[in-house]
Amino acid sequence: MDIVLFLFDGITALDIVGPFDVLKRLPEARIRLVSPPGGTVRTGDSLLGLGPAEPMASVDRAHVLVVPGGFGTRRLQRDEAVLGWIRAVHETTRFTTSVCTGSFLLGAAGLLRGRRATTHWAFLDRLSAYGAEPVTERVVFSGKIVTAAGVSAGIDMALALAARLAGDTVAQGIQLGLEYDPAPGFDAGSPRTADPRLVTLVRDALLERESRYAG
Amino acid sequence: MDIVLFLFDGITALDIVGPFDVLKRLPEARIRLVSPPGGTVRTGDSLLGLGPAEPMASVDRAHVLVVPGGFGTRRLQRDEAVLGWIRAVHETTRFTTSVCTGSFLLGAAGLLRGRRATTHWAFLDRLSAYGAEPVTERVVFSGKIVTAAGVSAGIDMALALAARLAGDTVAQGIQLGLEYDPAPGFDAGSPRTADPRLVTLVRDALLERESRYAG
Repeated sequence: MDIVLFLFDGITALDIVGPFDVLKRLPEARIRLVSPPGGTVRTGDSLLGLGPAEPMASVDRAHVLVVPGGFGTRRLQRDEAVLGWIRAVHETTRFTTSVCTGSFLLGAAGLLRGRRATTHWAFLDRLSAYGAEPVTERVVFSGKIVTAAGVSAGIDMALALAARLAGDTVAQGIQLGLEYDPAPGFDAGSPRTADPRLVTLVRDALLERESRYAG
Repeated sequence: MDIVLFLFDGITALDIVGPFDVLKRLPEARIRLVSPPGGTVRTGDSLLGLGPAEPMASVDRAHVLVVPGGFGTRRLQRDEAVLGWIRAVHETTRFTTSVCTGSFLLGAAGLLRGRRATTHWAFLDRLSAYGAEPVTERVVFSGKIVTAAGVSAGIDMALALAARLAGDTVAQGIQLGLEYDPAPGFDAGSPRTADPRLVTLVRDALLERESRYAG
């Protein structure tokens, strides 16, 4: 079972490392890292490199495709080679998935039309531009397309996927191995529960950072 | 504020990328990646490289030191250069922290004597060998030493640390930015809640993998 993790410059590390550490524990999984030119990619802040990846051109199929988010997705939404590759690999997958703003690459590739989908809460309304129905859920299954909310939601998405692919017991074993028994000290992980002033502050900061990254 | 993340071959990626994506969002944080020889390290399965890191010899102080886990810690527990470096940096820190089996490096460096501490549930009893009092908690503060439970607990540890370093509002803002509103589909992330047969199975599998890695 080939699990293809798509890497790119401007990726958010946790978006992909969450699913990586869940999905690599699936029996018979073969993890393949892929990036447009191959090699090592850098996170948006340039602090951390991830790789090495195979070049996109050398991978044309996957059982599972994972497209993570990060400010780098902004540029890639206009990159026809990347979008064409996602479309082509999607034709071969059992599941095509995204984390956070990775959903905008699925959207730009035309895969979200008429589908329920989610993304990072701060950018959720933009999904409509791709013909998707934005949904405030942590993980959204729509046929074989699976979208997850922001950054850390990739862990929950990957566990849900593990259950679909290998059964509940395997997924639970992976969860136990990762000691994924989350206990954040605050209940501020969602705009539903966070202080509304904080929600505005964080949204503004994210939009500002995004504009600098794209500029 | 220098936040030093210690990397090594045989690291578990999520152990360090969880804290990375939390702590890099602290105002005025400077993240420094460090590994014994510098350069890029590989996860235990060799699937993913992380880096580039500065060599250990070029970093002698930190406000925060984060020591992650992974099967690679087994070999490093006998590496006097690494243990001496951890001891020396610890002298300069405001907080010295570990995730998962990273606690055994703190233990081997002599930093856990007489302290409450935790680690991955499957290895918890081994902490006694270092004079620590093993504690079944997700994040344990003992003076300036902070230990976290297995793998994903690094996220909770880093958020707790962010609150101590920069206040609750900043920590909550980071949590919201990462949309850390966890919702695993199963309640199997701890031996407290998982099926006892699964606990045995996962423990045995981890011990078996560890023995192969060390051998």
